[in-house]
Amino acid sequence: MSEEVKPESMPLCPVSAAATPEQELLCIFGTGDLGRSLGHRLLQAGYKVVYGSRRPHSCGPLPPGTQAMSHEVAAKSANLVFICVHREHYDFLETLAPQLKGKVLVDVSNNLKKNMYPEANAEYLQRLVPGAHVVKAFNTLSAWALQNGPSDANRQVYLCGNSAVAKQAVAETASKLGFTVLDRGSLSAARELEDSPLQLFPEWRLPIRLAIGLTASFFFYLLIRDVVFAYVEQGKDISFRIMVSLANKVFPIVSIIMLSLCYLPGVIAAFLQLYRGTKYKRFPDWLDRWMLCRKQLGLLALAFASLHVLYTLIIPIRYYVRYRLAQNTISQIKENKTSEFDTTLAWRTDSYFSVGILGYGLYLLLGISSLPSVSNSLSWREFSFIQSKLGYLTLFFCTFHTYLYGWDKFLRPSYYKWFTPPGYMLSLVVPSVVLVLRLLLFLPCVDRTLTRIRQGWERSDAENDSKKSLLT
Amino acid sequence: MSEEVKPESMPLCPVSAAATPEQELLCIFGTGDLGRSLGHRLLQAGYKVVYGSRRPHSCGPLPPGTQAMSHEVAAKSANLVFICVHREHYDFLETLAPQLKGKVLVDVSNNLKKNMYPEANAEYLQRLVPGAHVVKAFNTLSAWALQNGPSDANRQVYLCGNSAVAKQAVAETASKLGFTVLDRGSLSAARELEDSPLQLFPEWRLPIRLAIGLTASFFFYLLIRDVVFAYVEQGKDISFRIMVSLANKVFPIVSIIMLSLCYLPGVIAAFLQLYRGTKYKRFPDWLDRWMLCRKQLGLLALAFASLHVLYTLIIPIRYYVRYRLAQNTISQIKENKTSEFDTTLAWRTDSYFSVGILGYGLYLLLGISSLPSVSNSLSWREFSFIQSKLGYLTLFFCTFHTYLYGWDKFLRPSYYKWFTPPGYMLSLVVPSVVLVLRLLLFLPCVDRTLTRIRQGWERSDAENDSKKSLLT
Amino acid sequence: MSEEVKPESMPLCPVSAAATPEQELLCIFGTGDLGRSLGHRLLQAGYKVVYGSRRPHSCGPLPPGTQAMSHEVAAKSANLVFICVHREHYDFLETLAPQLKGKVLVDVSNNLKKNMYPEANAEYLQRLVPGAHVVKAFNTLSAWALQNGPSDANRQVYLCGNSAVAKQAVAETASKLGFTVLDRGSLSAARELEDSPLQLFPEWRLPIRLAIGLTASFFFYLLIRDVVFAYVEQGKDISFRIMVSLANKVFPIVSIIMLSLCYLPGVIAAFLQLYRGTKYKRFPDWLDRWMLCRKQLGLLALAFASLHVLYTLIIPIRYYVRYRLAQNTISQIKENKTSEFDTTLAWRTDSYFSVGILGYGLYLLLGISSLPSVSNSLSWREFSFIQSKLGYLTLFFCTFHTYLYGWDKFLRPSYYKWFTPPGYMLSLVVPSVVLVLRLLLFLPCVDRTLTRIRQGWERSDAENDSKKSLLT
Repeated sequence: MSEEVKPESMPLCPVSAAATPEQELLCIFGTGDLGRSLGHRLLQAGYKVVYGSRRPHSCGPLPPGTQAMSHEVAAKSANLVFICVHREHYDFLETLAPQLKGKVLVDVSNNLKKNMYPEANAEYLQRLVPGAHVVKAFNTLSAWALQNGPSDANRQVYLCGNSAVAKQAVAETASKLGFTVLDRGSLSAARELEDSPLQLFPEWRLPIRLAIGLTASFFFYLLIRDVVFAYVEQGKDISFRIMVSLANKVFPIVSIIMLSLCYLPGVIAAFLQLYRGTKYKRFPDWLDRWMLCRKQLGLLALAFASLHVLYTLIIPIRYYVRYRLAQNTISQIKENKTSEFDTTLAWRTDSYFSVGILGYGLYLLLGISSLPSVSNSLSWREFSFIQSKLGYLTLFFCTFHTYLYGWDKFLRPSYYKWFTPPGYMLSLVVPSVVLVLRLLLFLPCVDRTLTRIRQGWERSDAENDSKKSLLT
Repeated sequence: MSEEVKPESMPLCPVSAAATPEQELLCIFGTGDLGRSLGHRLLQAGYKVVYGSRRPHSCGPLPPGTQAMSHEVAAKSANLVFICVHREHYDFLETLAPQLKGKVLVDVSNNLKKNMYPEANAEYLQRLVPGAHVVKAFNTLSAWALQNGPSDANRQVYLCGNSAVAKQAVAETASKLGFTVLDRGSLSAARELEDSPLQLFPEWRLPIRLAIGLTASFFFYLLIRDVVFAYVEQGKDISFRIMVSLANKVFPIVSIIMLSLCYLPGVIAAFLQLYRGTKYKRFPDWLDRWMLCRKQLGLLALAFASLHVLYTLIIPIRYYVRYRLAQNTISQIKENKTSEFDTTLAWRTDSYFSVGILGYGLYLLLGISSLPSVSNSLSWREFSFIQSKLGYLTLFFCTFHTYLYGWDKFLRPSYYKWFTPPGYMLSLVVPSVVLVLRLLLFLPCVDRTLTRIRQGWERSDAENDSKKSLLT
Repeated sequence: MSEEVKPESMPLCPVSAAATPEQELLCIFGTGDLGRSLGHRLLQAGYKVVYGSRRPHSCGPLPPGTQAMSHEVAAKSANLVFICVHREHYDFLETLAPQLKGKVLVDVSNNLKKNMYPEANAEYLQRLVPGAHVVKAFNTLSAWALQNGPSDANRQVYLCGNSAVAKQAVAETASKLGFTVLDRGSLSAARELEDSPLQLFPEWRLPIRLAIGLTASFFFYLLIRDVVFAYVEQGKDISFRIMVSLANKVFPIVSIIMLSLCYLPGVIAAFLQLYRGTKYKRFPDWLDRWMLCRKQLGLLALAFASLHVLYTLIIPIRYYVRYRLAQNTISQIKENKTSEFDTTLAWRTDSYFSVGILGYGLYLLLGISSLPSVSNSLSWREFSFIQSKLGYLTLFFCTFHTYLYGWDKFLRPSYYKWFTPPGYMLSLVVPSVVLVLRLLLFLPCVDRTLTRIRQGWERSDAENDSKKSLLT
């Protein structure tokens, strides 16, 4: 291949057609807001700009130094044409096909909704003007970024197109405007690029709904068990406990449930593979969707755990707690009884705090390793070590923390007010199940089979093979 | 340039001339520290290196395996020449113009100050040797990184130049040295690259100065109101409260003021656009500068909020607090009075803590989404949702937290010592104004006009248009 | 400029062979798990796939739509061949050399251990088939990512090879599969790429071992001094203090020692350069290794400091602490003595907390600036300002915090139980030494010499030069 490399014959062969652009001329079709913003920016970056317009003489104020022409004339003057026109008006481009032949057309359009049209705008454009090289680009940027340059979430220009040379020409322009360019492949990726600016955290929806649902359910459950129970049975108004005490019961419950829901689909998948005896059958859709939102589940769980930490740490500065502690001391003196120091209680509570802190520390580590720049710098062996090994350790610590909190309350009937278990007992169900199932997978016989399946071995394969060997 | 592109003759044209570099030879002009460091590194990466020197026979110790020659001879032997010479000595290169014709010259120089010379070093070099392809590169790296390879802040090589092929050749070398390459466009970007290593947080200066100013002002204000007042009026020395109590008043005040200052310019800009009836007029310079440092303002505000959280959480382990609580209990017993539990107070303080914690949680979320890798992975719709919607929610929570803290103290004259309001009341002015103005912008009629303006509509436009339609 | 672009003569001049891939055909050698996973994925991305197999008619189930052929036939049909075969079976490729001439061979193999073979798999492959263009790629991805596309730690495809064009063809395919491509240079980088998936935090090993060693040593030291001492000398069982009190002594000790160990090698290196009078001599290996793991040392130190913060903040909610405080109050009342408020103690403890919090805040800042995306966005001047200036400030604050904690206990013999110093006194040794040495380096005469040495000046040089000038 590189035998053809002859440095003499082409010492500096141009990678792109836009090698030394001394005031290159670009064309913009459309004099609306988008066209004007883009024109402003291109002028700043040192380009010359002409506009193509239906009404070149009455198209409103254009950036100084530019001029508007008819589409035909404008198209002829430049090699790169930005189409800043709504898709509904694309049809006039069909008549310009001869002038646009061989030109690079940059489709920057977006739609108002997903799936408004059967094909992507850029593919429609390519169909209208088959002789041109359509490149989808810049549509993921905000109009503000197009006018003012890159900032924060607007640093990257995604582009796609069928012609590598056309893409390189557009990439050159984009990097001259200060953006980083990411090539997304052929024009068939255009729909994905057109859908992306319409998305608002699509992969967060399910986990957020789940978090809200769990929070609401446990809030009402505990409201009834704690506040309503105290009011009905003892006639006490302890509604002020909603703000901190109740919240600090709900948050850790939701957190540990969501953390265990991160690990449940993996366990289910393993058992499914064991049952099926192959890894080549697709998982059911619900399991696939579940597995894809594990990261989001985990991060929400971390957020709830952090709230739990903060709510716990402010306990001693609360008026209610200070009042109660003082009353305890006063009543001890008045009744002149001395409470003995309970070493077991000291061990238990300190262990409970200590395990909780270590669990939260690991939790934070998982969160940090989920940051895009950190996970990019890890090899997948390192990443899976953290997310899997340390993840299960975190789940174990947090579950153990909750069991220590419960201690012997599991056995005392007085804690089952109105025959309902306390919230933290309910929260222990899923994590305990996940940990037990995970332990089952550690059994040597199970582990060995699973490893073989994941290396591509198939149970039915073996049978086929034995049959084959009989036949041959 | 692209006339040489003949697809037939080279179906797989080499992207760079350095396709299969078996011990490629590079040349370095200059045998100073920079030249020697670079030479060391190039040798390690498998290149051969020759030095060009004024005194090839007495130029001090060079890396083993390299040799020094006269500039003429050295220039002829390689296609890529690193210019490791101070700009003041560039003039000798003019005489080498014939030997350097068609070569790639890599300008790695930096200046000691900004704007020392009318043109960038690399542009000056290009002017001296018009026949060569000058590429500005490597100058943003530390000498340590040039000698020892990439690390932390030294992973990226920025380059710019007018010849795409020359840039690619330099990029190839840089990535062989282990660096990531970022193309910054044509040679006119050289000045920016040369200025960049001289910068020390330029965009942080204004926010940091503001933070220091606010901190100092409020510190002295509160010092006088609290410590000096107690000393003068009551003869008590409570100066020990400076370290924690006073700090924990100043930090939240500065934090909420700076957070609201993040959102004030956006509100001002909106009203300015409404007043002008167009978005195409530039904002005044002070507003532009202010808007550009919003991120830094917000991150500093977050830092102060975090200090506030830590200072608040250590309250119960302070000697002073423990002493006072014990004295309270003791005096209650001695005077044999029982303080009633105040449910309103419990509600108020718990709400105050709860709102504060939720506000801080959102604050942290804003901070995390400002991390470059996180904001890069968000679409701009997602980013602006977090920074705008969640940002205003954060401001609202924090302001509400402060109002809850104040409660009925606003109305009690005894809190206005020496006729001055407490610090937190002063801190509420800006956030309250921002929130009220922002609410005004939510009014349907205002919102509609603003949306139209931001979509490119202009009030004067409309009038012009109507005039035009009369004329035509 | 691009007028020369004549669509007729080179409708889409291929930057790579894969410019307009309408169903491009790729070949995979090997029908094992890896080959099938990769085939699935390539089909999804719109490629056509053929398999080369030893037993084309009995090679097990292949992805639907693909077919297996003999190696010879399959090789002829495609330009890009993925070698999904274990290295041990590479030798059959030698016989295919004529068919593979000019083809791009993608080596995706990994080994089970480092240094299993004298040369990298990809280099071995290149030696077997010298006429082909071998590209090492995809081997750093997990099999899961190869089958299901990029996710978290599996976004980047590293590749290397001697032919730039071949690399570009592979890069095109990789980005069509959704991966980001990072070019790692010539084929000599293959060994590094092959070793990388086997690594599990190599640069973290030494720091983690150190942290474990320090933690264990100080744990047993304090266990003996505190718990065993109390049991032996006073007959009291205070073993419950292990969980929180003891942990909260060990963690800050380990943290400050590790933080100071971050800065010690830099100081040693400076003194070594001063002693040698040159910066061009290599540091001893242990110092080099030490300097390379400073970041990891610092991050572990931060983790321990964070644990210290959390353990400190839960102090007031511990049963033991509440019990003791109540007992203190009760005994004060019973003995009817009033403890005077000690202003000095208030100053001291508040300063101690305040300095600790500020130190921890700076610590966090150092940690945040170590995140890859943050350090990438800093210039090296900014990065070294944070890591060096702010780093020493952090060390100073933390050391000062510990001295304030000790206060006058250094002088009281009763604190030296069994003639051993308390743990925090031991922990102060290294930080104090580092700070004193660092202060020495600030002395003008020392600083000036060091700066000159770091700018390339050599003490022996000067002597040589003077000799030379005598000779000439």
